[in-house]
Amino acid sequence: MSFSGFLDPHAIAIYGASERQNSPAAHVLRNLKGQGFPGQIFAINPKYQQIAGLPCYPSQVAGRLAADLAVIAIPPRFVPTALQDCEAVGTRSAIVISAGFEDDHGSASYTRLAATAKTAGIRFLGPNCLGLIRPSKRLNATFQPALPPTGGLALISQSGAICSGLSDMAETEGLGFSLMMSLGNSVDFGMGDALEMAVADTETKVILIYVEGVRDGARFRAALANACQRKPVIVLKAGRHADGAAAATTHTGALIGSDRVFSSVLADCGAVQVSTLGEMIETARLLNTAPNLFGDRLAIVTNGGGVGVLSADRLADRGLALAELPKTAIDTLNPVLSTNWSRRNPLDIVGDAGAQDYQVAIDACIESTAFDAVLVLLSPQSMTAPELVADTILSAKQRSSKPIMTCFVGGPSVASARAKLRRQGIADFTLPEHAVQAYAQTVQAMRAAQNSRSATLFEDKNTSITHRVLDAMSPLPSGMLSDTQSRQLISAAGIRCPVPSLAETADEAVRLFQDLDSAIVMKIASPDISHKSEVDGVRLNLQSEEDVVTAFHDMLLRVGNLRPDATLSGVTVEPMITLPDARELLIGVSQDPAFGPVLSFGAGGTLVELLDDVATATLPIGFEQAQRLVADTKIAKLLGPFRNWQPVNVDELAKLLLTVSDFARALPNLEEMDINPLIASPQGFCAVDARIRLSQPDLPLLPTDASELHQLGYNNQG
Amino acid sequence: MSFSGFLDPHAIAIYGASERQNSPAAHVLRNLKGQGFPGQIFAINPKYQQIAGLPCYPSQVAGRLAADLAVIAIPPRFVPTALQDCEAVGTRSAIVISAGFEDDHGSASYTRLAATAKTAGIRFLGPNCLGLIRPSKRLNATFQPALPPTGGLALISQSGAICSGLSDMAETEGLGFSLMMSLGNSVDFGMGDALEMAVADTETKVILIYVEGVRDGARFRAALANACQRKPVIVLKAGRHADGAAAATTHTGALIGSDRVFSSVLADCGAVQVSTLGEMIETARLLNTAPNLFGDRLAIVTNGGGVGVLSADRLADRGLALAELPKTAIDTLNPVLSTNWSRRNPLDIVGDAGAQDYQVAIDACIESTAFDAVLVLLSPQSMTAPELVADTILSAKQRSSKPIMTCFVGGPSVASARAKLRRQGIADFTLPEHAVQAYAQTVQAMRAAQNSRSATLFEDKNTSITHRVLDAMSPLPSGMLSDTQSRQLISAAGIRCPVPSLAETADEAVRLFQDLDSAIVMKIASPDISHKSEVDGVRLNLQSEEDVVTAFHDMLLRVGNLRPDATLSGVTVEPMITLPDARELLIGVSQDPAFGPVLSFGAGGTLVELLDDVATATLPIGFEQAQRLVADTKIAKLLGPFRNWQPVNVDELAKLLLTVSDFARALPNLEEMDINPLIASPQGFCAVDARIRLSQPDLPLLPTDASELHQLGYNNQG
Repeated sequence: MSFSGFLDPHAIAIYGASERQNSPAAHVLRNLKGQGFPGQIFAINPKYQQIAGLPCYPSQVAGRLAADLAVIAIPPRFVPTALQDCEAVGTRSAIVISAGFEDDHGSASYTRLAATAKTAGIRFLGPNCLGLIRPSKRLNATFQPALPPTGGLALISQSGAICSGLSDMAETEGLGFSLMMSLGNSVDFGMGDALEMAVADTETKVILIYVEGVRDGARFRAALANACQRKPVIVLKAGRHADGAAAATTHTGALIGSDRVFSSVLADCGAVQVSTLGEMIETARLLNTAPNLFGDRLAIVTNGGGVGVLSADRLADRGLALAELPKTAIDTLNPVLSTNWSRRNPLDIVGDAGAQDYQVAIDACIESTAFDAVLVLLSPQSMTAPELVADTILSAKQRSSKPIMTCFVGGPSVASARAKLRRQGIADFTLPEHAVQAYAQTVQAMRAAQNSRSATLFEDKNTSITHRVLDAMSPLPSGMLSDTQSRQLISAAGIRCPVPSLAETADEAVRLFQDLDSAIVMKIASPDISHKSEVDGVRLNLQSEEDVVTAFHDMLLRVGNLRPDATLSGVTVEPMITLPDARELLIGVSQDPAFGPVLSFGAGGTLVELLDDVATATLPIGFEQAQRLVADTKIAKLLGPFRNWQPVNVDELAKLLLTVSDFARALPNLEEMDINPLIASPQGFCAVDARIRLSQPDLPLLPTDASELHQLGYNNQG
Repeated sequence: MSFSGFLDPHAIAIYGASERQNSPAAHVLRNLKGQGFPGQIFAINPKYQQIAGLPCYPSQVAGRLAADLAVIAIPPRFVPTALQDCEAVGTRSAIVISAGFEDDHGSASYTRLAATAKTAGIRFLGPNCLGLIRPSKRLNATFQPALPPTGGLALISQSGAICSGLSDMAETEGLGFSLMMSLGNSVDFGMGDALEMAVADTETKVILIYVEGVRDGARFRAALANACQRKPVIVLKAGRHADGAAAATTHTGALIGSDRVFSSVLADCGAVQVSTLGEMIETARLLNTAPNLFGDRLAIVTNGGGVGVLSADRLADRGLALAELPKTAIDTLNPVLSTNWSRRNPLDIVGDAGAQDYQVAIDACIESTAFDAVLVLLSPQSMTAPELVADTILSAKQRSSKPIMTCFVGGPSVASARAKLRRQGIADFTLPEHAVQAYAQTVQAMRAAQNSRSATLFEDKNTSITHRVLDAMSPLPSGMLSDTQSRQLISAAGIRCPVPSLAETADEAVRLFQDLDSAIVMKIASPDISHKSEVDGVRLNLQSEEDVVTAFHDMLLRVGNLRPDATLSGVTVEPMITLPDARELLIGVSQDPAFGPVLSFGAGGTLVELLDDVATATLPIGFEQAQRLVADTKIAKLLGPFRNWQPVNVDELAKLLLTVSDFARALPNLEEMDINPLIASPQGFCAVDARIRLSQPDLPLLPTDASELHQLGYNNQG
């Protein structure tokens, strides 16, 4: 679609323009007029003939007007009429600021709004949003007063308060914006559309997102993946602890929570995920001035030991090693620096360092191929000349494209030097940890974006699984499947999984034993007994027909005495699995309300509770992603050669994850699945326990109706 | 000791005062004179008769002067003479700014310096330090220019750069100081002394520490524990990733690293541990205005949803739950607030909230017993009146002692309101996460300080262990003990630990079997074979004499064939331990260079690598501490009733840790000890494997000589 109505409107119609001091439309009108919007402004309101010196019309049609953007801030019940007015004159872009649709005929008004706009061919932001800001066009179509400086940052926000806060602090924080968009309830224009717009916008260099949740996960994911390949995207996901977990019934579901899924999507796409507003501001500052940030080898130049140590700490906190200062650089610097300089990274050029010392140290770091970026720290000591050091940094920037960040740790005595650095496009930070953290978060995400570019996201669907699964069980049941049913399906998918067979008599048990041609496990079969081992209802490793017969009778007798109330239908027989060097793993599939089926992989058995060791990915996945999933867990350490254990074949394990991915696609009504434990051994894999829950096939998994929007919390003007 | 020479000097002698623009002493003189120090200033330098309008003398003696504080900034070789001059006139407190002692006769000059001062009865800061600042006395005895505002914060720093940075930014950040001390090389005045001084100082309300490491861990710990009982102490430990781990040889040592020990000391004492400069600033701001912060139930009032959600996220990140808004408060607020307010905590009173709405919401939170503190968030929207809201907050503060924090998320439009709040002593933050994080860190530490007040730190020493251990093995060997020796010692301490006995013949093996009166484990005995099971050299669960004889001969034959090179001295025999519902734990003792013996407790066996689940405490410990150690681990989850496992007796486990503590005291030359795994079962505990390393008893464990100071990195002017 064309976004020019939003990004470069020549005429704007304000529906609801009024002279009431505090009406949102009055604020919009005041902002547009007062902040120098150069285009035409049309006031639309049947109650007035003139507002603030402008003629006012009951409609665009009546005034023979034709805006390319409409800002609509009128009671909800009139909004569809306004959209029809827009349609009539060819206005194709709108911002619906109006709130309170829930109170006015509830969800029906959302539905009507969406339908009217669709018929009219109009795309709209909102409702219940703060509006849109385009500083380069002096366009502040919001009801908050601040117009931030022009720059390369685009903010897409599900919170109006975040827009107004960042708008107001932009100047102080040294941030410049190409665009700010408040999405409100996203009845039409969603996160995916907004991303597309920011990608298309040539002014935008870096995209910032504040998001609490998305409805159409697939659309968001695709738009984000595309955006991350073109521009750095910084995402602040809020509501990280609120939701999800409690609802799910299996381990997997409970462990993931939808925030973990969201994070895995961000990581897969290569977005920079930040967890606080401060981190968003710092990474935005960094990326806005240093978009060419790639390598993770940071040189730190400082005149104060403490701030250098704190920077190195933060780097390690974020999982990055401190790059080593090469010997050649040490040799170059030894004759020119104070005798007690550190001779390693951080380059502590000590308290009496002057601008000249800074220059040689910075030059050495810029010239060395051992570093990808330089952080210059300064603490104000009596011999320090902050402004001269700033000049030195600016001249170094002229000579090299290697990113330089600065942090002059102080107040008044470094203020003018810092202002100069910021003005000249250096990423300048107030505290050393901010610089380091922004750097680490950014380079890690950039690397992920590169990886996701080179990786095939997923391979062709393996349709044979569908046939095999349906052959095994047709029609498919729904609800929580029995142990046997679950195992049958998993086995049909091609994953080794012993399926228990029922033997009502000792003879049947013996026949099953003969068929299996291995030692067997026998368990009491009773719908009334869930913890079989507690009533002596499990016998392991039965190796002969005689053992089988004895165990059959003995077990029925013992269990019958212990649980006279229980109905005993016989025993189940399954092969005894004895795999050496066994590691217990977990594989699960659950449904995320936004992103659909999600695969989880991690430590299984008792380790589930202890480790909380789960890597997740939305399905389907490809082989490289499967490999990454395995590598991302703590349990990965145990899969290689470990003590005297033989290693597990991790490529085979990755393929097994692909099989689960195919399995989940073969069963679109798969609600939850747990294989726990999956025994991983040097001799192969075996699912020892499995649970599957299927939904009614015709039950939709995702909300499709506007009435659910509000329940899902999409009421995010604030 | 009396600290008045440092805290309230009436006359200061500056050794090295000069007219050279950039000499440190010239800066000190300029600071004292220019910043209005009201006392006398004596310039001491044999080269001048007058400096900056002051008479200058070759010494205090020559000038018949008697300062109560000396600032010494002259070449190292002259410092002892200056100290003798001080002694002669009764100056008892000194600040030695001079650096470069290492270059001047190396460590010998430290020793001489310390000895001279001791003889002269002089306490001194430094050498190689920035100096001391006492804003209330207009006393800036440093060579950095900024004099921070007066207030209740005392900074004790091992980095001069941190002092000068905080000094410079104090005004901007709204921080006021009672005291700033740069410790430099701490040849005399260490962290413990500085803490004592800050505790004694009535101006000081909150103590801030920047520390990279301490030498006398016991002294530091005692001083810190005492300080935390009297004033909040905020500690920024730097160099968190640098040191330690690689040197240790056992698991325990490698896992702890001395930073973990340091953290455990801070936590035990109840200090607020922060990990960045920003966190130090934020917690200092909070504690300085709200020293009465205790409970962890925070109410959040906001006019913007997004900033509220981000605050709730941060609270959860820090492990605190969001307190529930009581129904009574909801009922009170329903009639007065906008219909779509949130009706829960965070109290989102929505975008058009005015000062009146803020007032009723804040009052409800203050009056409710459900909350311990209130955070007021404001985002600048068109209807918002930041200054009126600030007035509302200030008047609420008048009515209640409940701590109120504020965060007005914006720039120019909230600047004057924020300035007003700060001036009136409200803890005001720039970003919501800063407020929440400072709050969470602080209340958690305050709770720890209370706990450590109520807990007995350790019980009386159990001397019987010493006797038992020495009875078992005397004289004690040194180095890494054999498996048998280690088990003997642990067994002697009273911890169940099967000790293998050597049987050179089958008959001897049978006799041992008879003596043990239980099933046995037999292992091949050979100095050449370390992985016994790999050569079939282990037989479990031998239950009869016949089994024992057969196994003896069979094992010697098999191993002899597989490893013809190995010397086989027979087999070892030990009882077979079969404990049901066994959990594998680890207990270790290692030596921290500063804090001495340290106990570690956590998950054992294969879980060691996976979980990195170790809680540590410096020894000795008491029962409550032992209980806390157990509770602090992830494995604690597995110790209670778990699935169908019976619970372990955790009080018995805590007592076992006390036994280890006593054992470590009984063996002062214990270098390292690992019990891994310790089997914990509902039926008791058993050490299954153990390693002990003893040092030469006469080998000192800690550096005692000044020559080691420099190697240890105590060269922290910067």
